[in-house]
Amino acid sequence: MERKKLVDILIKDIMVLPMDGKVRFLKNASIAIDGGRIVALGDCVEYEGRETITLDRGVAIPGLINAHTHQTLTRGICEDLPLQAWLEKICFPLDAAYDEEDMRVASLLNQLEMIKGGITTFVDIYRHPAVAAETAIKTGMRAVISPQVIDIPAGVGETFQHNLEVFQGYHNKGHGRVHIWFGVHAPYSNKMETYKLAKEHADRYGVGVHTHLSETRNEVDSWLEKYKMSPVEWLHQEGILGDNVLAAHCVHISDEDIEILAETKTKVVYNPSSNMKLAAGVAPITRLQARGVEIAVGTDSHLSNNNLDMLEELRTGAFLQKLANNDAAAMPVYDNLASGTITGARCLGLGENTGSLEVGKKADITLYDFKEPHLWPIYSGEWNNVMEHLIYSASASDVHTTIIDGKIVMKNRQVLTIDEEGVYSLVQKHAHELCKKSDIESDQKL
Amino acid sequence: MERKKLVDILIKDIMVLPMDGKVRFLKNASIAIDGGRIVALGDCVEYEGRETITLDRGVAIPGLINAHTHQTLTRGICEDLPLQAWLEKICFPLDAAYDEEDMRVASLLNQLEMIKGGITTFVDIYRHPAVAAETAIKTGMRAVISPQVIDIPAGVGETFQHNLEVFQGYHNKGHGRVHIWFGVHAPYSNKMETYKLAKEHADRYGVGVHTHLSETRNEVDSWLEKYKMSPVEWLHQEGILGDNVLAAHCVHISDEDIEILAETKTKVVYNPSSNMKLAAGVAPITRLQARGVEIAVGTDSHLSNNNLDMLEELRTGAFLQKLANNDAAAMPVYDNLASGTITGARCLGLGENTGSLEVGKKADITLYDFKEPHLWPIYSGEWNNVMEHLIYSASASDVHTTIIDGKIVMKNRQVLTIDEEGVYSLVQKHAHELCKKSDIESDQKL
Repeated sequence: MERKKLVDILIKDIMVLPMDGKVRFLKNASIAIDGGRIVALGDCVEYEGRETITLDRGVAIPGLINAHTHQTLTRGICEDLPLQAWLEKICFPLDAAYDEEDMRVASLLNQLEMIKGGITTFVDIYRHPAVAAETAIKTGMRAVISPQVIDIPAGVGETFQHNLEVFQGYHNKGHGRVHIWFGVHAPYSNKMETYKLAKEHADRYGVGVHTHLSETRNEVDSWLEKYKMSPVEWLHQEGILGDNVLAAHCVHISDEDIEILAETKTKVVYNPSSNMKLAAGVAPITRLQARGVEIAVGTDSHLSNNNLDMLEELRTGAFLQKLANNDAAAMPVYDNLASGTITGARCLGLGENTGSLEVGKKADITLYDFKEPHLWPIYSGEWNNVMEHLIYSASASDVHTTIIDGKIVMKNRQVLTIDEEGVYSLVQKHAHELCKKSDIESDQKL
Repeated sequence: MERKKLVDILIKDIMVLPMDGKVRFLKNASIAIDGGRIVALGDCVEYEGRETITLDRGVAIPGLINAHTHQTLTRGICEDLPLQAWLEKICFPLDAAYDEEDMRVASLLNQLEMIKGGITTFVDIYRHPAVAAETAIKTGMRAVISPQVIDIPAGVGETFQHNLEVFQGYHNKGHGRVHIWFGVHAPYSNKMETYKLAKEHADRYGVGVHTHLSETRNEVDSWLEKYKMSPVEWLHQEGILGDNVLAAHCVHISDEDIEILAETKTKVVYNPSSNMKLAAGVAPITRLQARGVEIAVGTDSHLSNNNLDMLEELRTGAFLQKLANNDAAAMPVYDNLASGTITGARCLGLGENTGSLEVGKKADITLYDFKEPHLWPIYSGEWNNVMEHLIYSASASDVHTTIIDGKIVMKNRQVLTIDEEGVYSLVQKHAHELCKKSDIESDQKL
């Protein structure tokens, strides 16, 4: 009998959705992981793991990709306000009040929640980006950190200069897991000069630009009035758009805008929960997809969602497209899960390394335990309902184990890289202080 | 020192949202339960429990009320089909194929999921109602069972005669927890004669009538063409509507329909996930509420949702109303949680006994454990975000303990009245057999 090949981790005898471009389901497969990468996928009988993971009703998918969030700290306050009042009275004062220690705690809480929900890669656009990067190095997550550069009003965001310093200090750190991009908040809060600097540097260094774009009717109307063109056209005429630009929201876009996004290969992030909760509108996702625009999905921050549950986000996104298109067949499960995995990875320029379970790729894996009643029955033959359960019934709490870059970051719901209880006591302290510092509490009564 | 009063259960030192008509939050309260009822709520220092429940971050609310579901067994098959194909090729053949044993297993699975999600009362409209009632007697749930009487096509539902027999055999069984109503599927699948019989018997026996009403555009258009009136008007002209009528969906209703529903005090069930997933449309809930119509919320069946998570349902419902009204302030948290608790109870004629935490009421209580990252930070003073977390971030999996009629039905996520593993093996067997019997599998490929 031959000696078995020893690998770091062997996940044995589970169901696998590889998301490798083929709509396929492996019923009784194993995954061998070594040196951070997937080295085998299939029966894997010739492998033995230094660590072995087995699970009766395990389902492995590529780690989920949350393509747009802000790592904030004050979930659940001041709800049900009209959008403008919420932004001006709550968000901006809070944004301005964060110091580095607040941000350290915020990023720990957000990354803790994402790991527990099976998210392995996220795109952050918020304050104190160096701290956000340091936290990702510590927690083991794959991260795209794009500093939230804001010109107007001054003082509530980051500067381009700081963005560049953070790029120089942190890009490719954490064994290559941390990517620093150029972040520009939005057309209405930035000068064109900043977009030009961001795009120029992103092109030069081979990274991306992340921005908000055409999120509300109000924003687009004011652009049409002021510039006689849409925000999409405004960016396009200066050559800002392109395949390394990731535009969040794109709710209020015209047919001409869709053409521009398609031709420039700009990537779009769909944020359905946030768009519904803030009454922003419905992004024309199926029309964008029909024109070949690649769509990622993001939770947005927990101020406008309020959890970072990517499966719930994918589900809400499908529900909303079915409703808006008056077609129950719109946004079928495979395309939808692809947006949360392989298509999402491509939107981040990371498609070569993550987003699907294939030999040679980085081992970013989310392992579900299909044990709770909402995941029964399981049809697991050729005719199966496993992907359907993920999209339409499962939640963050069904994740059993999260593996990032070949390292087990959570096992059986125990996060190994973060002291969970320690984080919560810091969260309580800093969340209360933030409200005091920003003086928002005085406006409130419940 | 005085001797303490002994009660069945004492839940100690938790946060409480009583939902008793006042927007209030008790920070450090206890609940004393005896003989099936709440006997004290507050500091409760004079009570001692035969059983004591403590929880560091416990939040107690009235047990959730799922006002419209069908206890089916084949979750997650044949998704993303156009509505009509889904109904005709999947639902009707399955409906017709259920035998009593299939239904026993289906009702066990559904009630297991509901108990684990903190639902204490549900309204079922489906097949083999005697079996559904027997299961509720066993599981300990409070249930309104309304047989799904269908005239057209014949053979896929129950008959009025059978409904009456089940009423005589099971109404008020299970220590009064089980209520048998008169169920009539929908105007398009029933004769007016059946509605008249149902309403007449419901009035005579002091129970309710449950029906689907104006769910799709197609249904309403065919009524306007055939009868020159809407389904709501059609029922109203024959005196069918009234305060003991619970109408599910009401998506496509006119201003005149809203007036009729308001004047007759008809109760409406909002099913947002199902309406989105099946692309049915958006029910005008805030307009109904503005006219004083009482709104309950239902998950619908797991064929069109696909989980029975009432908090996710309330959340989706709020998101959808905010979007449809173009107003982020629409459907605020208190009114929304009320729909899932006290208003829901009133819609079922059970408002005197359940739906709020008040001394003298039946002890139907859902106790959450706010320990997971998506429920932090907690502001728990006068200025708090506890209800906000429930509506916008929490899920079925955050429920710790479910108490119904003063009995602990689930404790620390262990269901005490159902053999969970036993149910799953039955589910697998019967779900596969159902697909074979109904011959739907042959149409499918994945």
